[in-house]
Amino acid sequence: MKDRFNRFHKLFYPQSIALVGASNVPTKWGSFLLSHLTGGGYPKEKIFPINPHEEEIHGLKAYRNLSQLPQPVDLVVITTPAKIVPSILDDCARLGMKNIVVISSNFSEVGAEGAALEREITQIAKEKDLFMVGPNTMGIINTQVDMYAVGAPLQLHKGKISFVSQSGNVGAQMLGWTMSQGIGFGKFIGTGNEALIHCEDFIEFFGNDPDTDLILAYIEGLDNGRRFMRIAGETALKKPVIVLKSGRTEAGSKAAISHTGALAGSDKIYDSAFKQCGVIRADSSQEMLDLSKSFGRLPLPKGNRLGILTLGGGWGVIATDAASEAGFVLPELEDHVIKMCDEYLPPFWSHGNPIDLVGNMNIQYHLEILEELAKSDNIDAMVVLGSLGTGVMIGLSALVSDYTSMGWDYDSLKKFMVRIDDRNRAFLQRALELMKTHQKPIVNVELQFIGDEHLVQLEAGKSVIFTAPEKAAGVLAKMRDYYGYLKRKGVDYIF
Amino acid sequence: MKDRFNRFHKLFYPQSIALVGASNVPTKWGSFLLSHLTGGGYPKEKIFPINPHEEEIHGLKAYRNLSQLPQPVDLVVITTPAKIVPSILDDCARLGMKNIVVISSNFSEVGAEGAALEREITQIAKEKDLFMVGPNTMGIINTQVDMYAVGAPLQLHKGKISFVSQSGNVGAQMLGWTMSQGIGFGKFIGTGNEALIHCEDFIEFFGNDPDTDLILAYIEGLDNGRRFMRIAGETALKKPVIVLKSGRTEAGSKAAISHTGALAGSDKIYDSAFKQCGVIRADSSQEMLDLSKSFGRLPLPKGNRLGILTLGGGWGVIATDAASEAGFVLPELEDHVIKMCDEYLPPFWSHGNPIDLVGNMNIQYHLEILEELAKSDNIDAMVVLGSLGTGVMIGLSALVSDYTSMGWDYDSLKKFMVRIDDRNRAFLQRALELMKTHQKPIVNVELQFIGDEHLVQLEAGKSVIFTAPEKAAGVLAKMRDYYGYLKRKGVDYIF
Repeated sequence: MKDRFNRFHKLFYPQSIALVGASNVPTKWGSFLLSHLTGGGYPKEKIFPINPHEEEIHGLKAYRNLSQLPQPVDLVVITTPAKIVPSILDDCARLGMKNIVVISSNFSEVGAEGAALEREITQIAKEKDLFMVGPNTMGIINTQVDMYAVGAPLQLHKGKISFVSQSGNVGAQMLGWTMSQGIGFGKFIGTGNEALIHCEDFIEFFGNDPDTDLILAYIEGLDNGRRFMRIAGETALKKPVIVLKSGRTEAGSKAAISHTGALAGSDKIYDSAFKQCGVIRADSSQEMLDLSKSFGRLPLPKGNRLGILTLGGGWGVIATDAASEAGFVLPELEDHVIKMCDEYLPPFWSHGNPIDLVGNMNIQYHLEILEELAKSDNIDAMVVLGSLGTGVMIGLSALVSDYTSMGWDYDSLKKFMVRIDDRNRAFLQRALELMKTHQKPIVNVELQFIGDEHLVQLEAGKSVIFTAPEKAAGVLAKMRDYYGYLKRKGVDYIF
Repeated sequence: MKDRFNRFHKLFYPQSIALVGASNVPTKWGSFLLSHLTGGGYPKEKIFPINPHEEEIHGLKAYRNLSQLPQPVDLVVITTPAKIVPSILDDCARLGMKNIVVISSNFSEVGAEGAALEREITQIAKEKDLFMVGPNTMGIINTQVDMYAVGAPLQLHKGKISFVSQSGNVGAQMLGWTMSQGIGFGKFIGTGNEALIHCEDFIEFFGNDPDTDLILAYIEGLDNGRRFMRIAGETALKKPVIVLKSGRTEAGSKAAISHTGALAGSDKIYDSAFKQCGVIRADSSQEMLDLSKSFGRLPLPKGNRLGILTLGGGWGVIATDAASEAGFVLPELEDHVIKMCDEYLPPFWSHGNPIDLVGNMNIQYHLEILEELAKSDNIDAMVVLGSLGTGVMIGLSALVSDYTSMGWDYDSLKKFMVRIDDRNRAFLQRALELMKTHQKPIVNVELQFIGDEHLVQLEAGKSVIFTAPEKAAGVLAKMRDYYGYLKRKGVDYIF
């Protein structure tokens, strides 16, 4: 078991990498890969491009073949044409280089001839005890050691989320989104055709990996559904496993077979199997990222009782609908909450949950009411709509106009905006403390034109801010259900 | 009828505006409103701030009261405390200023005393034949005449979508999103407490307004459901009416009553009434905008047969699932499509729908295959995944690395990116022509890291690009259903 862990570990933490098929032609994968590897920050002196026809590739000394290397490398990445992969594997075996990622395509995904070639390389790998990922994979990433041996131009935020994907495109694109959404990742692996190593093997490894807190998997189909469910179930007791499973419909399943040859199977069976083994299922690609962000940053709700604080009534109604449809209830407010609201809000405030702040501009008051909600015995989670950015409107209103005629000058306007920003940060800081003290999640929804990029800065990888209230409820519901699962299984949960 | 139209028209196209309650205090609505009005570009000489205590407000000459004005204005906007609104209405009536937007709050939404005051102003308006919007509204916008008499700092793209909202916050925030999403709007009205004029009155007006092509409504509850459905139904035969209706759940409905006092009623009844009268219902706030964009730019699908073109197999599977769940079928490809694919794609291409382009980098080939799909008798709509931006990866791969070592210099890299951009634009242009020729919608999904802001530029207010495939199917399904409704009603549809 320990040996097995070490093999996977070495794959993600290699001390040196050879890239067989490295190329100076900028449209070739052998060029992409090398660019991403060097651009990602992996030490250049530990990268060995292999190409029989070049002296130098992208400024690095090139080697004719693996035998020419000064010493064996920890990881061999292959982007050559498919037909020479067998001979490269033979070289690897002979030279004692056992960890291999085969990016090359044109194997079983393209028909009978490719399938025969895939059987051949699988046979070699098995016989020679090679640890082979792929073929036909997007590659491998470990941000912790700045390793981007991957076909897409990614430079990720660092974090403790790890991701295994059966589709390279889906994996790469979703990681691309995380760059602008500010979600930190640790490891990524595209499993490609899974000739030897399957997605559940990586889930198992990520489950044991101390640098992984949260596991994502994109799945089209499983060769061995029982094995997957067993491993995923064991892993889900240790850390959340979030799955996006496509091939849900008959037509989608047909498309999946054509794509990776995966047998998708009945979606209902998958769905109940996921539920049974505690796997969290994302409904869409974007929801998988919303879930990642939330699971990574928030304590789990321990029940279905939600408190909503809103700057405007309309969004409160929309959020309540979404919460209700996601199985949350909005309990009556406890007396101490009502007392605090009475103190800060006009007499006609809603006197109920959601608490309508009726446009109150003092974010400090919002915070004090939020604290009372957090303290309430009958509240498990909170959604705060519009508090962030309170006051931004005043500045923006000036900005859209000729502000000098309003008695503002540029400096005072700037100072005003900075002060609002400081208040936002203080608000989020206090909300983080409340979450920690009371072990209840707080989701912020921003409604005041702050702008996506700045929101990501405000989140600072710690808070959760959405820009539409509908998202908050769905994400919290899946977190609540995961808590329920752990509890039924007798697993103690500590955030 | 003509008179009625003219009254509404004058509200949105005033030749002069008085702002009663205008203020120099930057946290007051009377300051916001004036900023937005002048900042929006409405001619300053036609704006008349009214405030008994000021000589000048935001650099404009102020008047003590409406009687002091050199001549009557076309529109009176009121932001004063509620209790003096009756006397202002009396002034309006006496001076012959009949169009009034009451932004002031603290009426029926705050309890019995406010409700009495609301009855009083409604009575005055009825007796004196005043055309009064509100009270408690966010305001009114008409981008065509640069009029932003509204409480939120909005500067919208111009367009032919008009929006009536029962919640000012929801309306303002959604309009805020359209700014970064590049969706053009014409008119906006917040109906507030609807003391006199109801949201369906504006739907009726927008239906007759030649400058409105598409109508949006945010609704929490209706005083007269039958009247709404009758008007919405008549209007839906002329142009699409898209509704976001909250208070869907019991808890949401309770929150709505607390917010605007609206009686939400059973959601099932609403849902079937909407269907019966051809109103398109959005499932979420963001979907309402996705629908706006798509209805405004695409011909309606005339059936449920979808063709999918995808650069990567995984996204093809995800898109197929979404399409299938939205009631689309993916027909077998016609022979001429297969022939074209055989010409441009490797022999192992999917030979089916979705067409997997297996990473083909020549966008010109994508376009020729797309044209064959558009020509197909068995295809009603198309989704294109990943074609836009084909080749961007090559440039980005260079950019993330030390590109000089790859033989690029900055100029050649820049030229390369510009050339890709030109190709993207040419692709979209040709897709627009195909849509026009064949009267079938084409939705693009971008999967290559172009960046949201640049996507909006590429759309140029004419094409539709989403960044996740799941959205495309849902939006096309609602367009297809609207086409079906028109057809059943015997209405000819021309894009």
